[in-house]
Amino acid sequence: MITIHAFSSIPIPVRGLTRDLRALWAAEEAGLAYEIRPVDSMSGGLSSEDYLAVSPFGLIPAMEDGAFSLFESGAIVFYIADKAGKLVPADAEGRALAMQWALVALNTLEPAAINMAVVERFHAGENWAEERRPAVRELCEKRLATLDRQLAGKRYLLGDGFSAADILMTSVLRFIQYSDLIETMPNVAAYKARCEDRPAWAKVLETHDALLAA
Amino acid sequence: MITIHAFSSIPIPVRGLTRDLRALWAAEEAGLAYEIRPVDSMSGGLSSEDYLAVSPFGLIPAMEDGAFSLFESGAIVFYIADKAGKLVPADAEGRALAMQWALVALNTLEPAAINMAVVERFHAGENWAEERRPAVRELCEKRLATLDRQLAGKRYLLGDGFSAADILMTSVLRFIQYSDLIETMPNVAAYKARCEDRPAWAKVLETHDALLAA
Repeated sequence: MITIHAFSSIPIPVRGLTRDLRALWAAEEAGLAYEIRPVDSMSGGLSSEDYLAVSPFGLIPAMEDGAFSLFESGAIVFYIADKAGKLVPADAEGRALAMQWALVALNTLEPAAINMAVVERFHAGENWAEERRPAVRELCEKRLATLDRQLAGKRYLLGDGFSAADILMTSVLRFIQYSDLIETMPNVAAYKARCEDRPAWAKVLETHDALLAA
Repeated sequence: MITIHAFSSIPIPVRGLTRDLRALWAAEEAGLAYEIRPVDSMSGGLSSEDYLAVSPFGLIPAMEDGAFSLFESGAIVFYIADKAGKLVPADAEGRALAMQWALVALNTLEPAAINMAVVERFHAGENWAEERRPAVRELCEKRLATLDRQLAGKRYLLGDGFSAADILMTSVLRFIQYSDLIETMPNVAAYKARCEDRPAWAKVLETHDALLAA
């Protein structure tokens, strides 16, 4: 059984947005048994020696599978997918496309989305944030508009089949769900709702809520 | 033979820093034959209908292999590695670690590095950039310091063998080579120099300089 290190305490504004949910979602979708190792971020759990031994950057999530340990949510999602033989196509081209869309999520969209959330939400009202806000929002909007065109007529990023890339993309879109931007992109909004409507995602939120409440 | 879409014109400050170099470097290291399709960014090449058909976000690089096309530099580097059977370990754990370090480069370090370059270089002196600068630099420095500890006693990210992750990490470190930060991290500085000292990298710079000069 794999072990997933997940937050057992986080500030309320980021509940439902943390990257441990990506790993849990992959395990639920893949039907892979897992146990959760709780990390109490509010009392220094991220900087404990034990945790830094498996996740040296002090970031959540990390994963252990016997003596093997892994960090970076994207790598964990793909490892779980490969271990279960699900969520990533088996052929070279399908695999490359899954990685392409995973990286659209993690490298092309996520930095733009986080920079937007930083100026609009976490540092809203500060001088520098107000000054920077139009440019940051414009980049995020431009990237979302391209994603919207790419999703036209598609259920998921790879077509009909839900994949590891959809887990990562949905998680990234959730960083900016506070904003009205997603509603202006009909294909993105429908896609996000479709992914979040999956039973595995409901299970993840329920499991994680229970962990936070414990 | 694969085709790599690469810049044939770019502003001087970003020469040697563009993401097409990652794809070319992978092909050179893997010994995979390729041809370059030049994209003239200074005269609208990124927004031409032909280019957007292979790279919908209008970003460089893109790759074609017969009828198959792919974008996102990280996905292209891994596709080339897989096609050649080089640069990524064949076993599941080694493969996961290559992806882990690729994502440290592309998701944990690159956004921090680019945000630092934006405030210190591309928008230096603007009010918002000066106000934001300390926090942005602090995050980048913290991540680099962890990378420095992780590189202690290692030639490359996976140990003795150069991998796809090193191509991506070196490229990300180059975004902040204008700064004095890298010099303060002895393992990172030595690692970057070691990767850039590889004959394949020299060949890439030479090939790309010729393209820019043509």
